Amino acid sequence: MSDALRLGIAGLGTVGVGVIRIVQKHADMLRARTGRDVVITAVSARSKDKDRGVDLSAYAWENDPVALAARDDVDVYVELMGGENGSAKASIEKAIACGKDVVTANKALLAHHGQALAEAAEAKGNVVRFEAAVAGGIPVIKSLTEGLSANKVERVMGVMNGTCNYILTRMEDAGLSYKEAFDEADGLGYLEADPNLDVGGIDAGHKLALLSSIAYGTQVDFEGVELEGIGAITIEDIRNAADMGYKIKLLGVAQMTGRGLEQRMSPCLVPATSPLGQLVGGTNMVVLEGDSVGQIVLRGAGAGEGPTASAVMADVMDIARGFRCSTFGQPAASLKKTASARAAVPAPYYIRIDLLDKPGAMGKVASALGEAGVSIHRMRQHDHDGSHAPVVIVTHRTTRQALEHAIELFGQTGVVSGDPVALRIEKV
Amino acid sequence: MSDALRLGIAGLGTVGVGVIRIVQKHADMLRARTGRDVVITAVSARSKDKDRGVDLSAYAWENDPVALAARDDVDVYVELMGGENGSAKASIEKAIACGKDVVTANKALLAHHGQALAEAAEAKGNVVRFEAAVAGGIPVIKSLTEGLSANKVERVMGVMNGTCNYILTRMEDAGLSYKEAFDEADGLGYLEADPNLDVGGIDAGHKLALLSSIAYGTQVDFEGVELEGIGAITIEDIRNAADMGYKIKLLGVAQMTGRGLEQRMSPCLVPATSPLGQLVGGTNMVVLEGDSVGQIVLRGAGAGEGPTASAVMADVMDIARGFRCSTFGQPAASLKKTASARAAVPAPYYIRIDLLDKPGAMGKVASALGEAGVSIHRMRQHDHDGSHAPVVIVTHRTTRQALEHAIELFGQTGVVSGDPVALRIEKV
Repeated sequence: MSDALRLGIAGLGTVGVGVIRIVQKHADMLRARTGRDVVITAVSARSKDKDRGVDLSAYAWENDPVALAARDDVDVYVELMGGENGSAKASIEKAIACGKDVVTANKALLAHHGQALAEAAEAKGNVVRFEAAVAGGIPVIKSLTEGLSANKVERVMGVMNGTCNYILTRMEDAGLSYKEAFDEADGLGYLEADPNLDVGGIDAGHKLALLSSIAYGTQVDFEGVELEGIGAITIEDIRNAADMGYKIKLLGVAQMTGRGLEQRMSPCLVPATSPLGQLVGGTNMVVLEGDSVGQIVLRGAGAGEGPTASAVMADVMDIARGFRCSTFGQPAASLKKTASARAAVPAPYYIRIDLLDKPGAMGKVASALGEAGVSIHRMRQHDHDGSHAPVVIVTHRTTRQALEHAIELFGQTGVVSGDPVALRIEKV
Repeated sequence: MSDALRLGIAGLGTVGVGVIRIVQKHADMLRARTGRDVVITAVSARSKDKDRGVDLSAYAWENDPVALAARDDVDVYVELMGGENGSAKASIEKAIACGKDVVTANKALLAHHGQALAEAAEAKGNVVRFEAAVAGGIPVIKSLTEGLSANKVERVMGVMNGTCNYILTRMEDAGLSYKEAFDEADGLGYLEADPNLDVGGIDAGHKLALLSSIAYGTQVDFEGVELEGIGAITIEDIRNAADMGYKIKLLGVAQMTGRGLEQRMSPCLVPATSPLGQLVGGTNMVVLEGDSVGQIVLRGAGAGEGPTASAVMADVMDIARGFRCSTFGQPAASLKKTASARAAVPAPYYIRIDLLDKPGAMGKVASALGEAGVSIHRMRQHDHDGSHAPVVIVTHRTTRQALEHAIELFGQTGVVSGDPVALRIEKV
């Protein structure tokens, strides 16, 4: 254990540079805490000549990350390029084939190929670690895999896309429309090249699928995540929610049900006074519920150089200390394939509809709900402009199926204009 | 690694029974996650015949925990008796001498003897683990030791005594006096046999000292914790704080300063909108700040059968998985003795004084502050009963030394009745 642990780092963007900074700045501290030197031997990125503000002269350079992953002087291959296929996948496969441990921040890759990669690594006696892939600097993979390892997990929830939370917070605080808040976030560089990864819930959905696997001992099933983005949320929804004591968050929820694993990433109403409701701006929060521990809430920066590099290095430090936990908390070969249960857990819902101002319109909507078996907890018609009236309905606990049936029936009333917005009210 | 991990459990109170319940209920899950059976071979407690609601018939019984700790069929000695000396200490020493790993929830013991016990265990190649000793079910020892292991820790803060937070919350919510809230907590069984362990800040101080050691690589120094209980807090203080946008919390803070390690456990004002300010009732919260990760907030149940047993079992599971981290995150022999710096970090303060209604009284108080070099941010005199007037002062950032000088000078003015209350306003 006294030999140096040698890292090969592929990808020198924000996070890669952050990792290099930590290794250079804190060499003594890392050695004191792990009992061995943690060093970088080789790096790889697209452009060798770009000035990244860190001194790379002591490291070997590889143009090809696959070559980096195969180097004899690399013990741990640190993949920070991103992308769910291509070089990231090929280089990690190479590292595993060469018997090296892998640390990655790549949630898209693991959401799609995590099972195969973990099986391959474990067959070789190696580890794949990914603390940085979920909720940035928050030690959530560790807390779930190790800290709650004696718990049957009952629910995992999380606000894990800072960009969406920033947009929703700005809509509420500054009264911006979705489009204005989106443009502001874009201007600040918060959005991915494909913004749908953020606002469509895909990025956060990747993270949820990874947490689910650990929580429930199941194979990562990103396809099983029901995805709904925040694009349909209006400032009126946010205000209506606030009036009733709620906030709207892009919330991931994973629960094992009698019908299989339910994984949802969708805008939900949560109580304004709850930790999730109080979360503002780009911060992330994960809520873990276990049968013994009750509810644990973890909060911190979900992105950025320092926080993400901190998480990458936590994995490296664990490897340096000799920790060899299975990628998803139990041997990958023992993870079960599980049916995905869509909308198995009932809940109350918030519904906003645009009602045409016709005699008996409200009655028709109420009848449609009744016919679908959805009972009304409260219903409110707002001021209107003459021909249209926004109506907000809060239902009692109902199934998603009944709710969708009601919405279908709305379409037949002839008094509802456009698409209703229906948001789950999650008990947190 | 495929052999069973055999536990010997000393202490069958709430937590011990909780651990037994987990081992019995989740045997399959524990095996799936660790790759081996986790079993209990022997137990010890004061009374063999007491009905604890769990079946102990499969376990050997020892009247003497020291004998339990020495048994050949015990791999991990789990100490859940409590007490900073006596049987707890003797039995842990025995277990270490016999080359066994130790898991304990005993903060008092570790706060006083952690250094010696860790050195002894590490000399034998064994581990002492204590996740359950700090903040119950919250995986805070793990998050700090491992999750933030690549960070220079900048500050550790925590509300880690649920009873104190319950009392303060009840004073605020129900308008109870300190005495009334204390009696209510006592009636609910929330207080330790010696209530000063709770309300005097000692219990929380033990926890802070353990966190400090890990955070700063220093030997546990409970004597260096500046302790101040909540007994002097009045409902008026809580209301005054609320008026200014603050809550009062028994807050632990540990920071490394140029003059040494500052560790404080004292009632502080924190912003009402901060996570710490929003914490109500018996819940615990720990805030960890690192140079890379920024601020991480962890929240959960700080006590109770399930949460504490969950933390004990997390340590057991780590041992079953083969994790062998040093007790305080780096070899105990390498932990430094560090000077304790009292009140090194300046802050604004809240001061409440009882002013005698004499001409020029306010002026005299203001002059005393000025003479001590303490500048006033705001000052307010409340309604008074004729001869006494409560005055609340918020200072600008000042040293504790200057503040104490000012309070000394108050005594010489002849216009201040009784002891002023001075509470730090912590930036969180």
